[in-house]
Formats: sequence, structure tokens, C-alpha cells
Amino acid sequence: MSQARPSSIREIATKLGVSTATVSNALRGTGRVSSGLAEQIRLEADRLGYVPDHTARALRTGKSNTVGLLVPNIGQPLFPAFAQAIERAAKRRGLAVLIGDSQGDPQQQDFEIRNMVARGVDALIVIPTRGTTITQADVPIAVIDSAATTGNIAASDHREGGRLIARHLLALGHERLLILAGPENSLVARERVEGMCEVFRQAGVEPALQHSDATFEAGSILGRELDLRHFTACAAAYDALAIGFAIAVKERGCSIPEDMSLTGFDDLMWAQIVSPPLTTVRQDLEAVANHALAFVAGETGTSGIFPTKLVVRQSTARPSAFAKGGKHAE
Amino acid sequence: MSQARPSSIREIATKLGVSTATVSNALRGTGRVSSGLAEQIRLEADRLGYVPDHTARALRTGKSNTVGLLVPNIGQPLFPAFAQAIERAAKRRGLAVLIGDSQGDPQQQDFEIRNMVARGVDALIVIPTRGTTITQADVPIAVIDSAATTGNIAASDHREGGRLIARHLLALGHERLLILAGPENSLVARERVEGMCEVFRQAGVEPALQHSDATFEAGSILGRELDLRHFTACAAAYDALAIGFAIAVKERGCSIPEDMSLTGFDDLMWAQIVSPPLTTVRQDLEAVANHALAFVAGETGTSGIFPTKLVVRQSTARPSAFAKGGKHAE
Repeated sequence: MSQARPSSIREIATKLGVSTATVSNALRGTGRVSSGLAEQIRLEADRLGYVPDHTARALRTGKSNTVGLLVPNIGQPLFPAFAQAIERAAKRRGLAVLIGDSQGDPQQQDFEIRNMVARGVDALIVIPTRGTTITQADVPIAVIDSAATTGNIAASDHREGGRLIARHLLALGHERLLILAGPENSLVARERVEGMCEVFRQAGVEPALQHSDATFEAGSILGRELDLRHFTACAAAYDALAIGFAIAVKERGCSIPEDMSLTGFDDLMWAQIVSPPLTTVRQDLEAVANHALAFVAGETGTSGIFPTKLVVRQSTARPSAFAKGGKHAE
Repeated sequence: MSQARPSSIREIATKLGVSTATVSNALRGTGRVSSGLAEQIRLEADRLGYVPDHTARALRTGKSNTVGLLVPNIGQPLFPAFAQAIERAAKRRGLAVLIGDSQGDPQQQDFEIRNMVARGVDALIVIPTRGTTITQADVPIAVIDSAATTGNIAASDHREGGRLIARHLLALGHERLLILAGPENSLVARERVEGMCEVFRQAGVEPALQHSDATFEAGSILGRELDLRHFTACAAAYDALAIGFAIAVKERGCSIPEDMSLTGFDDLMWAQIVSPPLTTVRQDLEAVANHALAFVAGETGTSGIFPTKLVVRQSTARPSAFAKGGKHAE
């Protein structure tokens, strides 16, 4: 932070041919700047190692210039990716980040919050362990979860992401659908699944729902055990679930997408490396992270919900006449 | 930590039919306990939520009961896995962990160390950004890197891991070898590659070396651009390199392992999910993490080098007569 090369808003503005006010707004997540331009500005700021002049001013309390980030489980690949986005957003504000891991345990989460406050962080950004609501801490706190979460400050529009997946599968001609819905007590999973169900039901399609943990292992068990004969497509609430499922059903002789289309959610690294590469929904982690930082830095007082994007790869296709007939790998 | 269910060394000892001294030694990483039994004891302690009675005593300075863990890049999947192993080893000692990310930047690393000390951590565990040596901090510090690293306290035997890979490929009959050697300034990569080369050269085989970054993207570029005709096998110094390489060469029509065998290093989650699953080397992260914790907690004053394990999957096979003849996808 203090070592980053000093640079200036003016330099970024000149480089991109925009006003310094636009650059300033984009970096703070305030004002009206198109998301494409804001992204360009943020990339340029990162490239130049931009650090704001008035670091201390940026935080509401301004004691340590350190933000604590609490993730539900550092072992799930989404959260290191989120941490990196938070780090970039913090760096643009001259703030350090310390990461705590709730290890999927609500008691650990409470402990981590207390310990981070005791360590003097100026503010907290918390991605809550599912089934928990974050009560007040002694420092400003921004919760990143879902639009349905009490006290949520920044989140992706998980419900709209679910709608994108459902519209994609309907457009391909799928009408017999299995949804791997993830954990029942996850508000994020619930939003994603409700978005899917809303679109399917409007089209007169009633999907089958299967709840489970959100992990690769849970997907793998479902892929081994479920009766797949009635479905031409499977939509998972998480990439990890989809990938565990894909590997297990392939071992049963079910080809993706020939016998069954499959979708994930999150667009993690591994969505690209599985075979076939996975159709999924990408969150705009940069936008969510930037809004959470803007909130704890006192630059905005409102919550923000950010659009997601459908990423179509090779795991989805039209249902084959064969699969439509109901014959399927068992 | 303070919320974990209290349990006792006696309970673990009774459950496993060993003495309380053995349990105590295994949890502290001291004394002579076989690695299999120590692992059983650690798993049981985790299952029971074991927390030692004399938490404060465990740390040399004992101010915050918090250890700072600094990783070189939270976005590389090895490091979240390492963080989880450190968290488990810390929890067994009643210690909290805060994670900092050097983001691949030596200046950021220096900053994070200073910031963690300023935040009152009692000790630091640092996996250094490559090309750096950690100078003294104001708290006890355990460096996790390689046996060749100055000041290293805990590491896997990367050199022996390289030897395991080379022996495996030689035993299959490979004699024309490409090594994706990773970054020239990484001591870990160098140890791995030197281990491989030592065994190959003893067998009269001279491998070709290709240096690059340690990432999926670097592997992908090499897989697109290298002339593969002269090789029947490729050994990568990192799983990420191997997987990027695998996906790129497949797009060129080169089948793994039919046209070319491929190995990685680290046994990350994605080594199992790529097609074909990757032959690789697994580090004993639990043992390395436990030794680093034992050092900063003052339970041991020596450094430890821990064995690795060859994990054979479907990406390696005997060279085909066709591939041996030198004809290859280009």
C-alpha cells in the first residue's frame, strides 16, 4: 500500500480521455459512470498502482487503514476470487485487507468478527456463513450475500442469474428439468433457484428440486445416485455441484450435453477446465467488491445489487430426440 | 476458538487406545509418533473440537493468541488449501489465524508483515513470494518454502517429489522428456525440477527444460506454441501449468496419455476433475502446517522437511509405438 507507486487521477483521465471527476467517481463507485468505462478506469488504476492522496480520510474511523474480510470458507474457490476483488478495491483506496475464515461455522464467524475488531480493523466486510445474520459489530460492516439477506449491502442479482439460466435452457427446448438446488438454508442458493423456477413455471414447466450441500462431493453423490431418466437438463445452483455431478454421471455412461445438458453458477476457474466446459453464470465480483468497500469507506450509504452474465459453453445443447424419448443412462 | 466444544486428550487417547502422552506429542508435532497414527489423532481431535487447556501458554509471546499467515497469492488454489491446514493446526492449539495476501508482490509482502505485526499478531507464518527472503520480523516467524530456502522452517521435500515423478515416467519407458520448469526464481520449482533432472540424468536421459510463469495461462500458451514432436512425456512443476498445457495440446489434436503422458505437482482439487485426471505429487500440507505452528508456538526449534507422495492417475501411460516414432500432433 504505502509502497505502491504514487500516481494520479489526472494521469488516468488523460490516458482514457475522460474528466478527472469521472475517474474519481468510477474509483469510488459513485456518480453515473457506465460499467464498461468504470471497469476500464479501474484496470488502468490497478496498472498504474494508483493510491489515493488522502488515504486516512477514506475510512469512517480511520485508525488502522485496514479492512477485515470474513469469508465463509476459504476452501471454496469462489471466496479466494472474491478476496482478490476486495483487495483490488481496497488498494485503490489505500487500504489493507486482512482475511478471516469462518470455516463454515457460525460460532467461528462470531469469533472471527470479535478477533478482527480486537485487532483494530477499521471496518469489516462479511460474506456470511449460510443460515446466519450478522448482528452489529463495533465497526462499520458491509454484508455481501443476497438481495433477500437482512442487512445486505452488496450482492449479485442471484435471482436474475437464475432467470438467465432458465431462459437459456428453455430456448434450447428443454422441458424436463432437474435443479440441484444446494443448501435449503442458503439465501443465495434460494434466490438462484427461485429465479430459475419463476421462468420455468411461466413456461408451464415444473422442475424437480434436489437439495444438498454446495460442494463437489455432494454433486458427485447426486450424480451417482439420482434416477436421471426423466430429465434432459440439469441446472445446478453452484459450479462445484455441477462439476461433481458431471464427473459422476459420465462414469455412468451419460454424455454431456448429448444425453443431458448441464449448467453451473459462479464461473469459477474450473468451469473452463472440465470437459465439456460448463455453461454458467458469472458474477461481477469487481462491482460487488467495490460497492462493499465504498460503503465501509463512507462513500455511499445505500445497498447495491449488481447484474450477472450468462456464459454459454459446451455443456448445454438442444435435447436429443433420443434423450427426449425418456431413455437414459441409469 | 473459545466457542469450540471442550474435549480432552484423555478422550482421544481412550478412543484410539493409545497413551495420553502419545496424543499430546502427536498434537504438538513432537516426540516419536508414526505419521499414520499422528494423522488419526489429529483427525479425532478435529472431530471432537479439541482445544488445549492452556492456550495462552502455547505461544512464545502470548498477547493476542492470533497467528498471521501470509500467502504469496490467495488466487492460486494451493494457498487456500495451505491456509486450511494452518487453520486446523492453529485450532488444535487454541489459536486464531488472520490471512494476508502478498498478491505476488515483494513490496506488498513487506507491507503485510508490518501491518500484521502492527495488528498485534503473536507470530507469523510466511509462505514467501518467490524470489524473496524473509528478514526478521518483530515476532516469531516460520517460513514455509523449500529445503533450499534460507531460514526455511517447514517444507515438503520438493526435490524427492521431483524424483518420484521422474522414476514413474522412466518406469513407463519414457526417454524423450519435456519439463515445464516454472519460474526461474522459484526455489520450490527449482527443487522439483532438479529432483526430476537428477533421476533422468542418472538414467542417461537429458530432458528439455522450458521456463515460464506457474499459471494455468502460462501452461496454455506453452501448449499452443511448443513443438511437441520430440517428446513422449511432459512433466510440469505445477498442476496449474500441466492443466493449462493439457487443454491447449488437446485442442491441437494431441491425446493424453496416448500421444503424450503428462504429470503435474501439488494434487490440487482440479487435478482430479480434468480429463484425463492428472498424475501428480501430493504434499502433506497437514504435516508442514503442523510443524510451522509447532515452531512459532515454541514447541520445536528445528526445521522439518516432509515427504511427498506420488499420485498416479490416467494422464500417464507407456509411450505408444506411434508416439515413440516421433510423429506427433503439431
